[in-house]
Amino acid sequence: MEDVTRRHNEKKKRIKAARDKMMKEKNKEKGLVIVLTGPGKGKSSSGFGMVMRCIAHGMPCAVVQFIKGDREIGEKTFLRDRFASECKFFVSGEGFTWETQDRERDIAAARNGWQIAKEQILDPEIQFVLLDEINIALRYDYLDVHEVVEFLLEQKPHMTHVCLTGRNAKPELLEVADLVTEMTLVKHPFRDGIKPQKGVEF
Amino acid sequence: MEDVTRRHNEKKKRIKAARDKMMKEKNKEKGLVIVLTGPGKGKSSSGFGMVMRCIAHGMPCAVVQFIKGDREIGEKTFLRDRFASECKFFVSGEGFTWETQDRERDIAAARNGWQIAKEQILDPEIQFVLLDEINIALRYDYLDVHEVVEFLLEQKPHMTHVCLTGRNAKPELLEVADLVTEMTLVKHPFRDGIKPQKGVEF
Repeated sequence: MEDVTRRHNEKKKRIKAARDKMMKEKNKEKGLVIVLTGPGKGKSSSGFGMVMRCIAHGMPCAVVQFIKGDREIGEKTFLRDRFASECKFFVSGEGFTWETQDRERDIAAARNGWQIAKEQILDPEIQFVLLDEINIALRYDYLDVHEVVEFLLEQKPHMTHVCLTGRNAKPELLEVADLVTEMTLVKHPFRDGIKPQKGVEF
Repeated sequence: MEDVTRRHNEKKKRIKAARDKMMKEKNKEKGLVIVLTGPGKGKSSSGFGMVMRCIAHGMPCAVVQFIKGDREIGEKTFLRDRFASECKFFVSGEGFTWETQDRERDIAAARNGWQIAKEQILDPEIQFVLLDEINIALRYDYLDVHEVVEFLLEQKPHMTHVCLTGRNAKPELLEVADLVTEMTLVKHPFRDGIKPQKGVEF
Protein backbone atom coordinates (compact mmCIF):
# COMPACT_ATOMS: atom_id res chain seq x y z
CA MET A 1 0.00 0.00 0.00
CA GLU A 2 1.26 3.47 -0.78
CA ASP A 3 2.53 5.43 2.19
CA VAL A 4 0.07 8.28 1.77
CA THR A 5 -2.81 5.83 1.55
CA ARG A 6 -1.69 3.96 4.65
CA ARG A 7 -1.31 7.15 6.64
CA HIS A 8 -4.70 8.32 5.43
CA ASN A 9 -6.35 5.06 6.44
CA GLU A 10 -4.73 5.08 9.88
CA LYS A 11 -5.83 8.63 10.47
CA LYS A 12 -9.36 7.74 9.42
CA LYS A 13 -9.32 4.79 11.85
CA ARG A 14 -8.42 7.10 14.73
CA ILE A 15 -11.13 9.57 13.72
CA LYS A 16 -13.68 6.77 13.53
CA ALA A 17 -12.77 5.48 17.00
CA ALA A 18 -13.07 8.97 18.49
CA ARG A 19 -16.35 9.53 16.70
CA ASP A 20 -17.83 6.18 17.75
CA LYS A 21 -16.99 7.01 21.37
CA MET A 22 -18.54 10.46 21.04
CA MET A 23 -21.71 9.11 19.41
CA LYS A 24 -22.13 6.60 22.24
CA GLU A 25 -22.30 9.49 24.66
CA LYS A 26 -24.87 11.31 22.53
CA ASN A 27 -27.84 9.27 23.60
CA LYS A 28 -30.38 11.79 24.76
CA GLU A 29 -33.55 12.38 22.78
CA LYS A 30 -35.23 15.74 22.77
CA GLY A 31 -37.57 17.76 20.68
CA LEU A 32 -35.37 20.59 19.49
CA VAL A 33 -35.88 24.31 19.23
CA ILE A 34 -34.08 25.09 15.97
CA VAL A 35 -33.36 28.64 14.82
CA LEU A 36 -32.21 29.34 11.26
CA THR A 37 -31.23 32.96 10.87
CA GLY A 38 -28.77 35.26 9.11
CA PRO A 39 -28.90 37.10 5.79
CA GLY A 40 -27.79 34.20 3.58
CA LYS A 41 -29.99 31.98 1.43
CA GLY A 42 -31.09 28.63 2.84
CA LYS A 43 -33.17 29.30 5.96
CA SER A 44 -36.64 28.42 4.67
CA SER A 45 -35.37 25.82 2.21
CA SER A 46 -33.57 24.04 5.05
CA GLY A 47 -36.77 24.13 7.11
CA PHE A 48 -38.67 22.57 4.23
CA GLY A 49 -35.91 19.98 3.75
CA MET A 50 -36.53 18.90 7.36
CA VAL A 51 -40.26 18.72 6.65
CA MET A 52 -39.41 16.36 3.76
CA ARG A 53 -37.34 14.19 6.12
CA CYS A 54 -40.14 14.11 8.70
CA ILE A 55 -42.73 13.08 6.12
CA ALA A 56 -40.35 10.30 5.03
CA HIS A 57 -40.17 9.04 8.62
CA GLY A 58 -43.95 9.19 9.07
CA MET A 59 -43.74 12.14 11.47
CA PRO A 60 -46.75 14.47 11.05
CA CYS A 61 -45.76 18.13 10.51
CA ALA A 62 -47.26 21.58 10.46
CA VAL A 63 -46.03 24.72 8.71
CA VAL A 64 -47.07 28.27 9.58
CA GLN A 65 -45.82 30.92 7.17
CA PHE A 66 -45.70 34.26 8.90
CA ILE A 67 -44.59 36.69 6.27
CA LYS A 68 -44.31 35.28 2.80
CA GLY A 69 -48.01 35.53 2.27
CA ASP A 70 -50.17 34.08 -0.41
CA ARG A 71 -47.72 34.07 -3.30
CA GLU A 72 -47.71 30.80 -5.19
CA ILE A 73 -44.46 29.47 -3.86
CA GLY A 74 -43.20 25.98 -4.61
CA GLU A 75 -43.13 24.58 -1.10
CA LYS A 76 -46.75 25.55 -0.46
CA THR A 77 -48.06 24.07 -3.70
CA PHE A 78 -46.03 20.94 -3.08
CA LEU A 79 -47.17 20.32 0.48
CA ARG A 80 -50.79 21.43 0.01
CA ASP A 81 -51.36 19.46 -3.18
CA ARG A 82 -49.52 16.28 -2.34
CA PHE A 83 -49.08 15.98 1.41
CA ALA A 84 -52.18 17.53 2.95
CA SER A 85 -52.61 14.58 5.33
CA GLU A 86 -48.92 14.47 6.37
CA CYS A 87 -48.31 18.19 6.74
CA LYS A 88 -50.77 20.92 7.66
CA PHE A 89 -50.00 24.22 5.97
CA PHE A 90 -51.12 27.63 7.25
CA VAL A 91 -50.42 31.09 5.89
CA SER A 92 -50.81 34.00 8.25
CA GLY A 93 -48.83 36.77 6.55
CA GLU A 94 -49.85 38.81 3.57
CA GLY A 95 -46.50 39.16 1.88
CA PHE A 96 -43.19 40.62 2.89
CA THR A 97 -43.64 43.55 5.23
CA TRP A 98 -42.57 46.07 2.61
CA GLU A 99 -45.52 44.95 0.47
CA THR A 100 -48.21 45.55 3.03
CA GLN A 101 -47.36 48.96 4.45
CA ASP A 102 -49.92 48.53 7.15
CA ARG A 103 -48.58 47.87 10.61
CA GLU A 104 -51.96 47.13 12.19
CA ARG A 105 -52.73 44.49 9.58
CA ASP A 106 -49.24 42.97 9.94
CA ILE A 107 -49.72 42.72 13.70
CA ALA A 108 -53.11 41.08 13.34
CA ALA A 109 -51.72 38.56 10.83
CA ALA A 110 -48.74 37.75 13.06
CA ARG A 111 -50.93 37.26 16.13
CA ASN A 112 -53.25 35.03 14.15
CA GLY A 113 -50.23 33.00 12.98
CA TRP A 114 -48.92 32.65 16.53
CA GLN A 115 -52.32 31.43 17.73
CA ILE A 116 -52.28 28.71 15.05
CA ALA A 117 -48.64 27.92 15.85
CA LYS A 118 -49.42 27.32 19.53
CA GLU A 119 -52.28 24.98 18.66
CA GLN A 120 -50.06 22.99 16.30
CA ILE A 121 -47.20 22.75 18.80
CA LEU A 122 -49.60 21.56 21.52
CA ASP A 123 -51.21 18.98 19.23
CA PRO A 124 -49.81 15.63 20.45
CA GLU A 125 -49.99 14.19 16.92
CA ILE A 126 -47.67 16.79 15.42
CA GLN A 127 -43.93 16.10 15.77
CA PHE A 128 -42.36 18.93 13.80
CA VAL A 129 -43.59 22.52 13.45
CA LEU A 130 -41.97 24.98 11.05
CA LEU A 131 -42.60 28.64 11.89
CA ASP A 132 -41.38 30.13 8.64
CA GLU A 133 -40.20 33.76 8.80
CA ILE A 134 -41.49 34.22 12.36
CA ASN A 135 -38.24 36.06 13.17
CA ILE A 136 -39.40 38.95 10.97
CA ALA A 137 -42.61 39.23 12.98
CA LEU A 138 -40.58 39.13 16.21
CA ARG A 139 -38.07 41.66 14.98
CA TYR A 140 -40.73 44.27 14.27
CA ASP A 141 -42.43 43.45 17.59
CA TYR A 142 -45.56 42.24 15.85
CA LEU A 143 -45.16 39.42 18.37
CA ASP A 144 -43.67 39.62 21.84
CA VAL A 145 -40.50 37.53 21.94
CA HIS A 146 -40.93 36.87 25.66
CA GLU A 147 -44.34 35.33 25.05
CA VAL A 148 -42.88 33.06 22.36
CA VAL A 149 -39.85 32.06 24.44
CA GLU A 150 -41.96 31.34 27.51
CA PHE A 151 -44.30 29.15 25.49
CA LEU A 152 -41.40 27.18 23.97
CA LEU A 153 -39.83 26.65 27.40
CA GLU A 154 -42.95 25.83 29.37
CA GLN A 155 -45.56 24.42 27.04
CA LYS A 156 -43.82 22.78 24.08
CA PRO A 157 -44.19 19.00 24.42
CA HIS A 158 -40.81 17.42 25.20
CA MET A 159 -40.42 15.49 21.93
CA THR A 160 -41.84 18.07 19.52
CA HIS A 161 -39.35 19.88 17.25
CA VAL A 162 -40.00 23.54 16.47
CA CYS A 163 -38.00 25.31 13.76
CA LEU A 164 -38.09 29.12 13.62
CA THR A 165 -36.68 30.86 10.53
CA GLY A 166 -35.97 34.38 9.36
CA ARG A 167 -33.13 36.84 9.60
CA ASN A 168 -32.33 38.93 12.69
CA ALA A 169 -33.42 36.34 15.24
CA LYS A 170 -33.71 37.97 18.67
CA PRO A 171 -31.06 37.14 21.31
CA GLU A 172 -33.79 35.97 23.72
CA LEU A 173 -34.75 33.29 21.20
CA LEU A 174 -31.14 32.21 20.51
CA GLU A 175 -30.71 31.86 24.27
CA VAL A 176 -33.37 29.12 24.55
CA ALA A 177 -32.63 27.37 21.24
CA ASP A 178 -30.94 23.96 21.08
CA LEU A 179 -29.64 24.40 17.56
CA VAL A 180 -28.81 27.68 15.84
CA THR A 181 -27.39 28.19 12.37
CA GLU A 182 -26.52 31.63 11.05
CA MET A 183 -26.73 31.62 7.25
CA THR A 184 -23.92 33.93 6.24
CA LEU A 185 -24.25 35.56 2.84
CA VAL A 186 -20.99 35.11 0.97
CA LYS A 187 -22.27 35.71 -2.57
CA HIS A 188 -25.73 36.36 -3.98
CA PRO A 189 -26.74 36.55 -7.67
CA PHE A 190 -28.94 39.59 -6.97
CA ARG A 191 -25.74 41.59 -7.07
CA ASP A 192 -25.25 40.60 -10.69
CA GLY A 193 -28.76 41.62 -11.71
CA ILE A 194 -30.13 38.09 -11.69
CA LYS A 195 -33.74 37.80 -10.60
CA PRO A 196 -35.01 35.26 -8.04
CA GLN A 197 -35.04 31.90 -9.81
CA LYS A 198 -37.94 29.48 -9.74
CA GLY A 199 -37.04 26.33 -7.81
CA VAL A 200 -34.15 28.05 -6.07
CA GLU A 201 -35.68 31.06 -4.33
CA PHE A 202 -39.37 30.11 -4.31
CA MET B 1 -53.72 57.08 12.95
CA GLU B 2 -51.13 56.85 15.68
CA ASP B 3 -47.86 58.61 15.01
CA VAL B 4 -45.70 55.49 15.31
CA THR B 5 -47.97 53.62 12.90
CA ARG B 6 -47.93 56.48 10.39
CA ARG B 7 -44.14 56.73 10.51
CA HIS B 8 -43.86 52.95 10.15
CA ASN B 9 -46.16 52.92 7.13
CA GLU B 10 -44.32 55.78 5.45
CA LYS B 11 -40.99 54.07 5.98
CA LYS B 12 -42.40 50.87 4.52
CA LYS B 13 -43.67 52.80 1.49
CA ARG B 14 -40.18 54.17 0.83
CA ILE B 15 -38.66 50.68 1.21
CA LYS B 16 -41.23 49.24 -1.17
CA ALA B 17 -40.50 51.91 -3.82
CA ALA B 18 -36.75 51.26 -3.56
CA ARG B 19 -37.30 47.53 -3.72
CA ASP B 20 -39.66 47.72 -6.71
CA LYS B 21 -37.03 49.74 -8.57
CA MET B 22 -34.31 47.26 -7.66
CA MET B 23 -36.40 44.24 -8.68
CA LYS B 24 -37.09 45.83 -12.07
CA GLU B 25 -33.35 45.84 -12.70
CA LYS B 26 -33.01 42.19 -11.66
CA ASN B 27 -34.30 40.69 -14.87
CA LYS B 28 -31.62 38.26 -15.95
CA GLU B 29 -32.26 34.53 -15.88
CA LYS B 30 -29.45 32.09 -15.31
CA GLY B 31 -28.90 28.58 -14.13
CA LEU B 32 -27.04 29.11 -10.88
CA VAL B 33 -24.03 27.45 -9.36
CA ILE B 34 -25.01 27.35 -5.68
CA VAL B 35 -22.55 26.41 -2.92
CA LEU B 36 -23.79 25.66 0.60
CA THR B 37 -20.87 25.24 2.97
CA GLY B 38 -19.74 25.90 6.53
CA PRO B 39 -19.92 23.81 9.71
CA GLY B 40 -23.51 24.67 10.66
CA LYS B 41 -26.58 22.52 10.13
CA GLY B 42 -28.73 23.20 7.06
CA LYS B 43 -26.61 22.54 3.97
CA SER B 44 -28.14 19.30 2.74
CA SER B 45 -31.59 20.09 4.09
CA SER B 46 -31.58 23.37 2.17
CA GLY B 47 -30.52 21.52 -0.98
CA PHE B 48 -33.42 19.13 -0.52
CA GLY B 49 -35.78 22.03 0.16
CA MET B 50 -34.85 23.39 -3.28
CA VAL B 51 -35.50 19.95 -4.80
CA MET B 52 -38.98 20.14 -3.24
CA ARG B 53 -39.52 23.56 -4.84
CA CYS B 54 -38.34 22.31 -8.23
CA ILE B 55 -40.65 19.29 -8.13
CA ALA B 56 -43.51 21.66 -7.29
CA HIS B 57 -42.71 23.75 -10.37
CA GLY B 58 -42.47 20.67 -12.60
CA MET B 59 -38.70 21.02 -13.01
CA PRO B 60 -37.02 17.58 -13.26
CA CYS B 61 -34.16 17.11 -10.76
CA ALA B 62 -31.29 14.79 -10.02
CA VAL B 63 -29.48 14.15 -6.74
CA VAL B 64 -26.04 12.58 -6.39
CA GLN B 65 -25.01 11.82 -2.81
CA PHE B 66 -21.24 11.68 -2.60
CA ILE B 67 -20.51 10.76 0.97
CA LYS B 68 -23.53 9.93 3.05
CA GLY B 69 -23.70 6.44 1.65
CA ASP B 70 -26.43 3.92 1.83
CA ARG B 71 -27.87 4.77 5.24
CA GLU B 72 -31.64 4.92 5.24
CA ILE B 73 -31.97 8.66 5.39
CA GLY B 74 -35.27 10.44 5.09
CA GLU B 75 -34.62 12.41 1.93
CA LYS B 76 -33.58 9.32 -0.01
CA THR B 77 -36.58 7.25 1.04
CA PHE B 78 -38.85 10.19 0.31
CA LEU B 79 -37.56 10.92 -3.17
CA ARG B 80 -36.99 7.31 -4.26
CA ASP B 81 -40.34 6.04 -3.04
CA ARG B 82 -42.55 8.90 -4.06
CA PHE B 83 -40.85 11.00 -6.72
CA ALA B 84 -38.82 8.55 -8.80
CA SER B 85 -40.11 10.09 -12.04
CA GLU B 86 -39.54 13.71 -10.96
CA CYS B 87 -36.16 13.30 -9.29
CA LYS B 88 -33.43 10.78 -10.09
CA PHE B 89 -31.46 9.74 -7.02
CA PHE B 90 -27.93 8.31 -7.07
CA VAL B 91 -25.68 7.30 -4.21
CA SER B 92 -21.97 7.11 -4.89
CA GLY B 93 -20.43 7.25 -1.43
CA GLU B 94 -20.29 4.47 1.12
CA GLY B 95 -20.77 6.49 4.26
CA PHE B 96 -18.91 9.34 5.84
CA THR B 97 -15.20 9.11 5.15
CA TRP B 98 -14.39 8.17 8.74
CA GLU B 99 -16.56 5.07 8.29
CA THR B 100 -14.79 3.66 5.26
CA GLN B 101 -11.09 3.97 6.15
CA ASP B 102 -10.14 3.08 2.63
CA ARG B 103 -8.84 5.90 0.50
CA GLU B 104 -8.78 3.95 -2.76
CA ARG B 105 -12.40 2.96 -2.37
CA ASP B 106 -13.38 6.52 -1.44
CA ILE B 107 -11.66 7.82 -4.57
CA ALA B 108 -13.36 5.26 -6.79
CA ALA B 109 -16.76 6.11 -5.30
CA ALA B 110 -16.19 9.86 -5.73
CA ARG B 111 -15.08 9.46 -9.36
CA ASN B 112 -18.10 7.30 -10.06
CA GLY B 113 -20.34 9.97 -8.51
CA TRP B 114 -18.74 12.71 -10.58
CA GLN B 115 -19.27 10.70 -13.78
CA ILE B 116 -22.98 10.38 -12.94
CA ALA B 117 -23.12 14.06 -11.98
CA LYS B 118 -21.73 15.16 -15.35
CA GLU B 119 -24.27 13.04 -17.23
CA GLN B 120 -27.13 14.50 -15.17
CA ILE B 121 -25.94 18.09 -15.62
CA LEU B 122 -25.61 17.59 -19.39
CA ASP B 123 -29.06 15.97 -19.66
CA PRO B 124 -31.22 18.68 -21.27
CA GLU B 125 -34.31 17.44 -19.39
CA ILE B 126 -32.81 18.00 -15.96
CA GLN B 127 -33.10 21.53 -14.55
CA PHE B 128 -31.65 21.19 -11.05
CA VAL B 129 -28.81 18.92 -9.90
CA LEU B 130 -27.91 18.54 -6.22
CA LEU B 131 -24.37 17.26 -5.59
CA ASP B 132 -24.76 16.47 -1.91
CA GLU B 133 -21.54 16.46 0.16
CA ILE B 134 -19.35 16.77 -2.94
CA ASN B 135 -17.25 19.34 -1.05
CA ILE B 136 -15.96 16.55 1.21
CA ALA B 137 -14.77 14.60 -1.83
CA LEU B 138 -13.11 17.74 -3.19
CA ARG B 139 -11.51 18.60 0.13
CA TYR B 140 -9.73 15.25 0.37
CA ASP B 141 -8.76 15.48 -3.32
CA TYR B 142 -10.80 12.43 -4.19
CA LEU B 143 -11.88 14.70 -7.04
CA ASP B 144 -9.85 17.41 -8.74
CA VAL B 145 -11.48 20.77 -8.05
CA HIS B 146 -10.10 22.20 -11.30
CA GLU B 147 -11.86 19.50 -13.30
CA VAL B 148 -15.15 20.24 -11.53
CA VAL B 149 -14.80 24.02 -11.90
CA GLU B 150 -13.88 23.75 -15.59
CA PHE B 151 -16.89 21.55 -16.26
CA LEU B 152 -19.26 23.95 -14.48
CA LEU B 153 -17.87 26.92 -16.41
CA GLU B 154 -17.63 25.34 -19.83
CA GLN B 155 -20.15 22.55 -20.11
CA LYS B 156 -23.02 23.23 -17.73
CA PRO B 157 -26.10 24.17 -19.79
CA HIS B 158 -26.92 27.87 -19.28
CA MET B 159 -30.26 27.37 -17.51
CA THR B 160 -29.37 24.35 -15.36
CA HIS B 161 -28.94 24.96 -11.62
CA VAL B 162 -26.24 22.98 -9.81
CA CYS B 163 -26.09 22.99 -6.00
CA LEU B 164 -22.93 21.71 -4.29
CA THR B 165 -23.01 21.07 -0.54
CA GLY B 166 -20.59 20.13 2.20
CA ARG B 167 -18.29 21.93 4.58
CA ASN B 168 -14.86 23.31 3.64
CA ALA B 169 -15.76 24.25 0.06
CA LYS B 170 -12.60 25.01 -1.91
CA PRO B 171 -11.84 28.64 -2.81
CA GLU B 172 -11.67 27.71 -6.52
CA LEU B 173 -15.31 26.60 -6.33
CA LEU B 174 -16.47 29.69 -4.41
CA GLU B 175 -14.79 31.77 -7.09
CA VAL B 176 -17.06 30.46 -9.87
CA ALA B 177 -20.26 30.16 -7.81
CA ASP B 178 -23.19 32.56 -8.29
CA LEU B 179 -24.60 32.02 -4.82
CA VAL B 180 -22.68 31.01 -1.71
CA THR B 181 -24.02 30.59 1.80
CA GLU B 182 -21.75 29.73 4.71
CA MET B 183 -23.76 27.90 7.39
CA THR B 184 -22.23 29.17 10.61
CA LEU B 185 -22.62 26.96 13.64
CA VAL B 186 -23.87 29.07 16.53
CA LYS B 187 -25.26 26.28 18.72
CA HIS B 188 -25.56 22.53 18.22
CA PRO B 189 -27.36 20.03 20.49
CA PHE B 190 -24.47 17.54 20.12
CA ARG B 191 -22.71 19.64 22.72
CA ASP B 192 -25.43 18.79 25.23
CA GLY B 193 -25.21 15.06 24.57
CA ILE B 194 -28.25 14.95 22.33
CA LYS B 195 -28.02 12.44 19.51
CA PRO B 196 -28.90 13.19 15.87
CA GLN B 197 -32.67 13.41 15.72
CA LYS B 198 -34.81 11.69 13.11
CA GLY B 199 -36.45 14.22 10.81
CA VAL B 200 -33.99 16.91 11.78
CA GLU B 201 -30.57 15.48 11.00
CA PHE B 202 -31.48 12.62 8.65
